[in-house]
Amino acid sequence: MEAFSDGVLAVAITIMVLALRPPDGNTFTDLWNAAGAGFLINALSFAYVGIYWNNHHHIFQLVDRVNGAVLWANLHLLFWLVLIPFSTEWMERSHLAVAPTMTYAANLLLAAIAYWILETTIRRIPGEGQILANAVGVDKKAIASIILYALAIVVAPLSTAVSIALLVATAVLWLVPDRRIERYIESNPGSADFGERA
Amino acid sequence: MEAFSDGVLAVAITIMVLALRPPDGNTFTDLWNAAGAGFLINALSFAYVGIYWNNHHHIFQLVDRVNGAVLWANLHLLFWLVLIPFSTEWMERSHLAVAPTMTYAANLLLAAIAYWILETTIRRIPGEGQILANAVGVDKKAIASIILYALAIVVAPLSTAVSIALLVATAVLWLVPDRRIERYIESNPGSADFGERA
Amino acid sequence: MEAFSDGVLAVAITIMVLALRPPDGNTFTDLWNAAGAGFLINALSFAYVGIYWNNHHHIFQLVDRVNGAVLWANLHLLFWLVLIPFSTEWMERSHLAVAPTMTYAANLLLAAIAYWILETTIRRIPGEGQILANAVGVDKKAIASIILYALAIVVAPLSTAVSIALLVATAVLWLVPDRRIERYIESNPGSADFGERA
Amino acid sequence: MEAFSDGVLAVAITIMVLALRPPDGNTFTDLWNAAGAGFLINALSFAYVGIYWNNHHHIFQLVDRVNGAVLWANLHLLFWLVLIPFSTEWMERSHLAVAPTMTYAANLLLAAIAYWILETTIRRIPGEGQILANAVGVDKKAIASIILYALAIVVAPLSTAVSIALLVATAVLWLVPDRRIERYIESNPGSADFGERA
Repeated sequence: MEAFSDGVLAVAITIMVLALRPPDGNTFTDLWNAAGAGFLINALSFAYVGIYWNNHHHIFQLVDRVNGAVLWANLHLLFWLVLIPFSTEWMERSHLAVAPTMTYAANLLLAAIAYWILETTIRRIPGEGQILANAVGVDKKAIASIILYALAIVVAPLSTAVSIALLVATAVLWLVPDRRIERYIESNPGSADFGERA
Repeated sequence: MEAFSDGVLAVAITIMVLALRPPDGNTFTDLWNAAGAGFLINALSFAYVGIYWNNHHHIFQLVDRVNGAVLWANLHLLFWLVLIPFSTEWMERSHLAVAPTMTYAANLLLAAIAYWILETTIRRIPGEGQILANAVGVDKKAIASIILYALAIVVAPLSTAVSIALLVATAVLWLVPDRRIERYIESNPGSADFGERA
Repeated sequence: MEAFSDGVLAVAITIMVLALRPPDGNTFTDLWNAAGAGFLINALSFAYVGIYWNNHHHIFQLVDRVNGAVLWANLHLLFWLVLIPFSTEWMERSHLAVAPTMTYAANLLLAAIAYWILETTIRRIPGEGQILANAVGVDKKAIASIILYALAIVVAPLSTAVSIALLVATAVLWLVPDRRIERYIESNPGSADFGERA
Repeated sequence: MEAFSDGVLAVAITIMVLALRPPDGNTFTDLWNAAGAGFLINALSFAYVGIYWNNHHHIFQLVDRVNGAVLWANLHLLFWLVLIPFSTEWMERSHLAVAPTMTYAANLLLAAIAYWILETTIRRIPGEGQILANAVGVDKKAIASIILYALAIVVAPLSTAVSIALLVATAVLWLVPDRRIERYIESNPGSADFGERA
């Protein structure tokens, strides 16, 4: 399952760059006008997909066998992540207008909810799930993200700048490495399967 | 073989989103007009590719060695699955006209037949194939899908709405988890290779 | 190395479909005019990439360790395979004109030569390479392909139909399963690594 | 982590070909005008991504476990590599104008710096990192590349031909196989994990 998910995320993160169109002119000014804002939004979306990949990888370190419910929860998460290049492109082209910014934040919100559902589905696997539950406890970061994304949607009609600042803040929250699972594995050496290797 | 198939399916599922073009305007109305119907059809196609990936993964859990015939049967299935983004896009753009809907249903029908051929080819592998035959028996779901897709083609000239309802029904049929292989593995612990892990 | 090659081939085989553009109209006639010839050429290119993937997979079954020369020979092969969607698209759009057909055949010729170089490079690995040399002997099929592709280039200015017939014939030559490596593995059970599994 | 990185690089190397648009006409002159320069630049970019994949693969042969810092250093490298198709396309379309050439060289410079950061981050892993440090020593090639790319940027406003010559020279520097890691593994048989296999 990780091979397929890795594949989907790898494609999603790479095709985002297809939305960046090279400028018609040949100067740096042309480059900035055509792709400047897009570059920054792309970097943000790249970071988000990277964060999800990282978290996804960490969760499945602790899980050895999955059931059908986990497969579908995983596909549900991938569905929203695959739409990120689309909402990123609309936001770029509109130069951060209100509706596209709200749509982008909504896309991230739905991905965050899907991630929370996936985590919950895994916790319910008898035996396997308990390890994740022990390692992570209540996932405060996931809940904080959901709240911050919802806030970014509500705030966008007032100020897209504040909305985007909230989205950047959420990314930073996740960029700070989460040592919970690594710590758990270190103190429980037998708990991780070989998936943890490079 | 699974790595390659996973890769193809991962790309197919992700490039579907490239057919969704962000609207030229910056309002939610623009978004709905440009991508509303497309979003729903994409979700359906995403579910189909997800279902095939899921089934594909389950089948190959039970098979350890493959022969040349299985390799070609697998490529044949991938061929039809790779065309799904194309027929999805035509259906989207035509706003569910008759010929595109029939083409979409025909694409799904041909993929279902290819899947049935793949399953049959695997069953014929001496030794290995017998395990799958024991686990699945006659694949009633695969046969039901073929009939439902054929019906969706026939019905489309009369009503594309009924045709699409049949396609959605087939997806739902598969979304209900298929416990046959999982059950078989549980009661025959030595029958699955390591591919079953997450 | 196989994971990367599988990934490249999976993307190459899938993005070919991006060259097939859905028609503007909504009838089967529109579909045929817009994508009919393209569909057939795409099927041929799909078969070619599938054949290379299959052969690639078979070769690396017999090889356990690779050196730098093999890495570059492999990248060289991937380079020509990755160009197949491009030459396929030109051939499609030109409705099988002379120069695009010659370019397509040249692309296949260069891939065949690259494959032959890769095979030769692997044979030269001390120890490992000997196994492949024993299993395959002189690769008559690879040499026949090179001659047939060269012939298809030469013949194209006289008749593109004959040229395409030669290309189809070469594909059929490879679609007939090559039992050499399978036979060798069966009679030398310890010679294949785990890569042979599904 | 390698599966994801392999996937991203496989997609990046393959979508470069999407920038090559088939010509509107059907002659070899049309092909040359539309895609001649693009073909050469694409070959260069293909070689670069191939080089990074090769080096990436070699480094991770020596590393068994990674930490959060390595994950982010790796994503940072992938970010710049994923932009190569974009800067390649601009350079192609501009027929090697100054600003696009400088942008292309800057993209390669930032990727080289990211690679150097990744290497440094890995060296700092307690235990694991020491193996890499022993095998590679001070990475003179990486430092030479950074200097050559910086030079290519500075020189471009005077002569894009010299600038491109410097970029080609850097590629050639890497194409010469780097025996350091292979030598280290040979003389320290237990130091490489199974990732070294084909």
